[in-house]
Amino acid sequence: MKFSIYKTDALSKARSGTLATSRNSIRTPVFMPVATQAAVKGITADVLAGIGVDMVISNAYHLFMRPGKDVIAGFGGLHGFMGWGGSIATDSGGFQVFSLEGLNRVSEEGVEFRSHIDGAKHFFTPENVVDLQVALGSDIMMPLDECVKYPSPRGLVEDAVELTLRWLKRAASALRDVDEHGALFGIVQGGTYKDLRKRSAEETASLDMDGYALGGVAVGEPSEILREISAYTADLLPYEKARYLMGVGTPEDMLEAISNGIDMFDCVLPTRNGRNGQAFTSYGELNLKNSTFKEDSLPIEPGCGCPSCQSYTRGYIRHLLNSGEMNGPILVSTHNLYFYARLMESSRKAIEEGVFSSFKKEFSEKLASGRAGKND
Amino acid sequence: MKFSIYKTDALSKARSGTLATSRNSIRTPVFMPVATQAAVKGITADVLAGIGVDMVISNAYHLFMRPGKDVIAGFGGLHGFMGWGGSIATDSGGFQVFSLEGLNRVSEEGVEFRSHIDGAKHFFTPENVVDLQVALGSDIMMPLDECVKYPSPRGLVEDAVELTLRWLKRAASALRDVDEHGALFGIVQGGTYKDLRKRSAEETASLDMDGYALGGVAVGEPSEILREISAYTADLLPYEKARYLMGVGTPEDMLEAISNGIDMFDCVLPTRNGRNGQAFTSYGELNLKNSTFKEDSLPIEPGCGCPSCQSYTRGYIRHLLNSGEMNGPILVSTHNLYFYARLMESSRKAIEEGVFSSFKKEFSEKLASGRAGKND
Repeated sequence: MKFSIYKTDALSKARSGTLATSRNSIRTPVFMPVATQAAVKGITADVLAGIGVDMVISNAYHLFMRPGKDVIAGFGGLHGFMGWGGSIATDSGGFQVFSLEGLNRVSEEGVEFRSHIDGAKHFFTPENVVDLQVALGSDIMMPLDECVKYPSPRGLVEDAVELTLRWLKRAASALRDVDEHGALFGIVQGGTYKDLRKRSAEETASLDMDGYALGGVAVGEPSEILREISAYTADLLPYEKARYLMGVGTPEDMLEAISNGIDMFDCVLPTRNGRNGQAFTSYGELNLKNSTFKEDSLPIEPGCGCPSCQSYTRGYIRHLLNSGEMNGPILVSTHNLYFYARLMESSRKAIEEGVFSSFKKEFSEKLASGRAGKND
Repeated sequence: MKFSIYKTDALSKARSGTLATSRNSIRTPVFMPVATQAAVKGITADVLAGIGVDMVISNAYHLFMRPGKDVIAGFGGLHGFMGWGGSIATDSGGFQVFSLEGLNRVSEEGVEFRSHIDGAKHFFTPENVVDLQVALGSDIMMPLDECVKYPSPRGLVEDAVELTLRWLKRAASALRDVDEHGALFGIVQGGTYKDLRKRSAEETASLDMDGYALGGVAVGEPSEILREISAYTADLLPYEKARYLMGVGTPEDMLEAISNGIDMFDCVLPTRNGRNGQAFTSYGELNLKNSTFKEDSLPIEPGCGCPSCQSYTRGYIRHLLNSGEMNGPILVSTHNLYFYARLMESSRKAIEEGVFSSFKKEFSEKLASGRAGKND
């Protein structure tokens, strides 16, 4: 993997660049739709490619559970299995395993846990999680890390920072004997403690990883803290490497993060909210189940070029959502992913034209005016 | 609407033809995917058009309930509402209303029933059901009919035949003052009683309708009876008018019906079974949830040109189905509708090349050999 920065904004830390994997070349900032179980919910690969998505993120823990590493390896890896020609990042599943409260036991060696599906016992180590992602053919791998909840006491967060670092070293070592493999990122932890974030960022950076992820964010902390911590942490990471803010986020949080020098995002919002009928637009979110839209013959967002807005009205989509037709979730999710992809594209363009700050300001004002209008 | 027969098979009663509505020209025999609530479950309009579907059937009862006649009329009718450029037939909803056991009360005037959604009282008459379908902009309308269960005593079936005829006359009268409207078919009832089918067919035909539907079939009777009754009834209908076998069916039942002179079909099987993971193929049905397919890297049917078979394997689709991902139902339903559309296309071609009987025989043998193979 090769990351190159093309242009940096004069008034902020925003940058545009290119992430070249062995599969394709991805323009950054980039948003990766979430394909947890090897599928973006409701969106087939050809529709994804059609709306300009060139990278998704899947989850090693979920795929390990179902259908299993060997099954996917038998298909030549996740790309062949999913029928997806773009790039694939994989999360290690650390976050999932550590979410299994009462079902996991952490030791220096790794983490023992019980499957959320059948209760079977499993053991993840930094080494076998890397093996798993190599077998999946992941283009960008995430190491096993200890992700703590928000809020957590300082001692716990400090221990997690140190364990995550030791595990990262073991993950990197495990890769040395592997001929072909994707990039391995380091994950910075440290919760909301700036000095721990600093220690984690500096020590992780000293390992000269392919890129850096900000972990332990978007775990329930208020938006201002998320923004402050990610801005602070991004500054501590090497300029020339890709920076990935895990699990973020809303359009505003992403624009703020871009201005702080973040290059990559992933989040379930566009698809999860889409399934519930919430559409993202430049003028704020629309809850399409609302009776306001019953006779509305406008597309979700007038002027939007997505397949849903090209062919369908708010009134029809409301009917689908309220009738329990799966075409409703499909159409709203498609629109939302298109909206996210265009937001990244517009941000890149604004950075390259040297107008990112005014673009960001106008975007926020439009959102605010749309939201205020709805409350008239 | 204009129906023209292009070619008739020498060895059977099969015919190929063209059904020209004000929207488009549809080659027959034709299968209409079911869009009960103004959506083919899991398949967007562009995908439908892409796999060669040019006509769907929706349901006046369901649309009357949700979102309501006026809402759809406000969108310029069902075509505008659904974003569908092809033709649309609409069932009257008689079948649904008569299925609401204990919730309906039939009189000469019409049928009073309670909504399956909110329990509200409604009254359907032959006239208002036609009005409803005119407001929907239906290209082919079905009149309100009395559809009896199988088995039913002769007296009940006879009454239903007579009421259906009187209602058809009223439906046809109601249309006389309407400037623009789609075709209105007559529905032949008579259950499994041949003499009642004869009376119903002859008296319905004497009203010179735009086409004729065989109703009260596929309501639970054995396949042999379905086949015998539809063959017997089709023979009694005018040669030059389109014949539609309602709610049928399996690939074999459709081929049999085509050989008996049926031109149109609709059925929930390809989408309902598709959602449950059952795929139709030339070699028999595959239950894709089966563990046999776990590592299977073949497409659903090798050689199939559908979007699902172009990009995805049985193993991947099995994973989606077993993981509760809606992409599983989407991909299998897409394949099944493509299979049904191709079956109609192949039948037409065989009729036009004068080889329908051998085509039908080979199709059945291939199915049988495939099914036998699975039991080896």
